[in-house]
Amino acid sequence: MAKKALPLSQVYRLIEPGPVVLVSTMSGKQANIMTMSWHMMIDFEPPALACVISNRDYTFDIVRKTKECVINIPTVELAKKVVACGNTSGRTVDKFKKFGLTPSKAARVQAPLIDECYANLECKVIDTTLVGSRTICAGR
Amino acid sequence: MAKKALPLSQVYRLIEPGPVVLVSTMSGKQANIMTMSWHMMIDFEPPALACVISNRDYTFDIVRKTKECVINIPTVELAKKVVACGNTSGRTVDKFKKFGLTPSKAARVQAPLIDECYANLECKVIDTTLVGSRTICAGR
Repeated sequence: MAKKALPLSQVYRLIEPGPVVLVSTMSGKQANIMTMSWHMMIDFEPPALACVISNRDYTFDIVRKTKECVINIPTVELAKKVVACGNTSGRTVDKFKKFGLTPSKAARVQAPLIDECYANLECKVIDTTLVGSRTICAGR
Repeated sequence: MAKKALPLSQVYRLIEPGPVVLVSTMSGKQANIMTMSWHMMIDFEPPALACVISNRDYTFDIVRKTKECVINIPTVELAKKVVACGNTSGRTVDKFKKFGLTPSKAARVQAPLIDECYANLECKVIDTTLVGSRTICAGR
């Protein structure tokens, strides 16, 4: 098959297509949402996953402090809102209000579920070994 | 949205859909292929990715020894071969021969490219911090 060399800066587009998710958090009384596509399963049962959250993201400090979040899996109908959540910051915007998403109460964490999403994974941080070097944290 | 609780053992199906890839390796003169779906980007440029390879997989020892592999991204036409590669072991099967896949020479690693695949990422292992605890290794 004929192939071309890609600029290194575009390689991520080959691996990134897998489900884009919404990470919801709660800091005090403020709920927030972050769009994320760098994550992977790392264990079956109990299920665990690893994700990359930049220390430039508002969500980074909240997850570090609260040690929990919800991974919400959106449906295709939510695509525009998912992009909008990814292009704004919780530092200045209440994304639940601005984008018409509904927080609902989780069973095991303070972070809210996003009701419109297809699935909600309530997660607690279990490993921060690579935070700081590779910004990977594993949650279960 | 109405939701149901999932058995923990089925949670991986929510996160796993992202591109299933073929990992090719070379051990001595023996080329091998492994099907993998637990991987994520971890950096843009130079691009880097993390992946989970079980220590029960034949590929685990090879990547640990050679510190390199190729991540090959298949097209939908290869779906049956991708499944077949995932259901056999390189310990007993020459997967390139058995499944009619074509190894071609890589530029920077000994591991072969899989010619039929849409894209080939030549990777060298850069971090094994979590190998052993969480079987994550990062490659670039």
